[in-house]
Amino acid sequence: MSSNVHPLRPRAQPSIAGLLALTAPGLTAVNHVIIDRMQSRVALIPELAGHLIAGGGKRLRPMLTLGCAALLEYAGTRHHKLAAAVEFIHTATLLHDDVVDASGLRRGKATANRLWGNPASVLVGDFLFSRSFELMVEDGSLKVLKILSHASAVIAEGEVAQLTAQRDVETTEDRYLEIITAKTAALFSAACQIAAIVAERDAAVEAALEAYGRNLGIAFQLVDDAIDYVSDADTMGKDAGDDFRDGKITLPVILAYARGSDEEREFWQQAMSGRAAGEAELARAGGLLRTTNAVADTLARARHYGARAIDALAGFPNGPAKTALTETVEFAIARAY
Amino acid sequence: MSSNVHPLRPRAQPSIAGLLALTAPGLTAVNHVIIDRMQSRVALIPELAGHLIAGGGKRLRPMLTLGCAALLEYAGTRHHKLAAAVEFIHTATLLHDDVVDASGLRRGKATANRLWGNPASVLVGDFLFSRSFELMVEDGSLKVLKILSHASAVIAEGEVAQLTAQRDVETTEDRYLEIITAKTAALFSAACQIAAIVAERDAAVEAALEAYGRNLGIAFQLVDDAIDYVSDADTMGKDAGDDFRDGKITLPVILAYARGSDEEREFWQQAMSGRAAGEAELARAGGLLRTTNAVADTLARARHYGARAIDALAGFPNGPAKTALTETVEFAIARAY
Repeated sequence: MSSNVHPLRPRAQPSIAGLLALTAPGLTAVNHVIIDRMQSRVALIPELAGHLIAGGGKRLRPMLTLGCAALLEYAGTRHHKLAAAVEFIHTATLLHDDVVDASGLRRGKATANRLWGNPASVLVGDFLFSRSFELMVEDGSLKVLKILSHASAVIAEGEVAQLTAQRDVETTEDRYLEIITAKTAALFSAACQIAAIVAERDAAVEAALEAYGRNLGIAFQLVDDAIDYVSDADTMGKDAGDDFRDGKITLPVILAYARGSDEEREFWQQAMSGRAAGEAELARAGGLLRTTNAVADTLARARHYGARAIDALAGFPNGPAKTALTETVEFAIARAY
Repeated sequence: MSSNVHPLRPRAQPSIAGLLALTAPGLTAVNHVIIDRMQSRVALIPELAGHLIAGGGKRLRPMLTLGCAALLEYAGTRHHKLAAAVEFIHTATLLHDDVVDASGLRRGKATANRLWGNPASVLVGDFLFSRSFELMVEDGSLKVLKILSHASAVIAEGEVAQLTAQRDVETTEDRYLEIITAKTAALFSAACQIAAIVAERDAAVEAALEAYGRNLGIAFQLVDDAIDYVSDADTMGKDAGDDFRDGKITLPVILAYARGSDEEREFWQQAMSGRAAGEAELARAGGLLRTTNAVADTLARARHYGARAIDALAGFPNGPAKTALTETVEFAIARAY
């Protein structure tokens, strides 16, 4: 494997331009399914769902399904409906997440729960989730249904686990990795794995794509967690320091706490408990994350999982699809730089 | 059809004793599946789910699956897992409903959202919903998956429609029937219909059981809506007048409003808007519901759907299963007397 495919540090300005180009025609078809199937006689459903679905989402997960299908030279169209199902699961999760976190801002826009209230967000999330299963049933593959219904249960388990760990600075790195593997990486891995099913490839291919998606998902979440402490609402599209104010335990905090003095640990306990988590405390948290190298080392962990994602593709032939999927990993990591 | 099978008024004290006896062995198996499959390494999930699942629920929907399977003399066990899936969907819906309605009391106990908070209730609901699909996938029938994924989408649509109609006294009886057919009757009908699938019976049998479940579900909801105005927390297990205080438009209010004087309509508008919905107003509402016969006629409507449910069974042979299913309809209606 050449050094520019597998860098220790990402190249300058990696992008998902390759993935976008590779998946553009398929994504148009997926978007048609999405728009068509989020409709309902109940007008609030497409209105609320459309706010989020049309609202600047990258369609990263459906693009992964399409990109993996391209890697396998799959020539059919079954994956369009399934990629839409994946995006519906993701959208339902976002709607419920914003209720759970009482978030007011996502992708630079007011959240659905702020605009329409929590009840509507909960119920439209339920609708999209049900609709995603209807799409899968129409496709008719029990293997795909098994992968995505299991992924959905794992995501919900991960979300509950995160809720349980909220404000608990004693959360270990192992526990945290379990949580993000469930709540974030499970859908990335399922989105990739189902490409192997529609392309009717063997278990080794399925496992490779599952591993690619899982490791990319973990890297993606780690970078998100780092960005929350080093960015601002303009570049991030959500309020910086949200995790801090919500007492959400992420790897930067886990590392800074583990490496901190007694006095610093006391600070983190107070801050993450919510008893003292104002702007002054956020500034001090930023300082401690720098002095303990916690953000830098969170990104080092992300690069580790990114490298594993790229290596999971080693057995596939070189070409535009493999390059695009590799660059997607590099892009996911480079967002933090 | 004899007059005691198809009464204009329910007999004294109808009960579901027949359905309970008919389905007891199956229900034990279903309960094992439920307890087994609500488990998770994340302890909060079985804790919260168990509160509701063990907390006095009648298991009416799984009993309907079992009862319909008995009617068809189905001798297998596939329906145990599917009946558990139906109960998981129902439980997920209840968890989300209580968040949406900000309810504090259900079946005479504090609601999960009061005890564990809205975030946990939303996420554990998502988990149970996903788990229900995992159970269906294990069964492996795409027909069952289609029926239940569609029912789930319809339920969510009905809930959103109800949210849209909230506090709107101009809601018509037609619109209200659409809403309850979706939010309540869709799961009753699906629970019955899937018995025909596992028993491998033809489309006419499927349609008959679907109609039985749908009409029973509508009758059941109409009676619930009537009870909310004529009962109290002790007999009902939830706060009486909840619908009134929440501005939830149900048939009693729709009829009383339609039949009311200008001054009475003004009262209903004020009350259902929430601007004036205290104990004095609840008392006046009760008075208007009596003078306009709105509760009595809501129950007359319920008897109509109950009669249709019973007639939907006309083509099946007489026997303990048919009797039990018939008495279940009579019981559903008699709860209001």
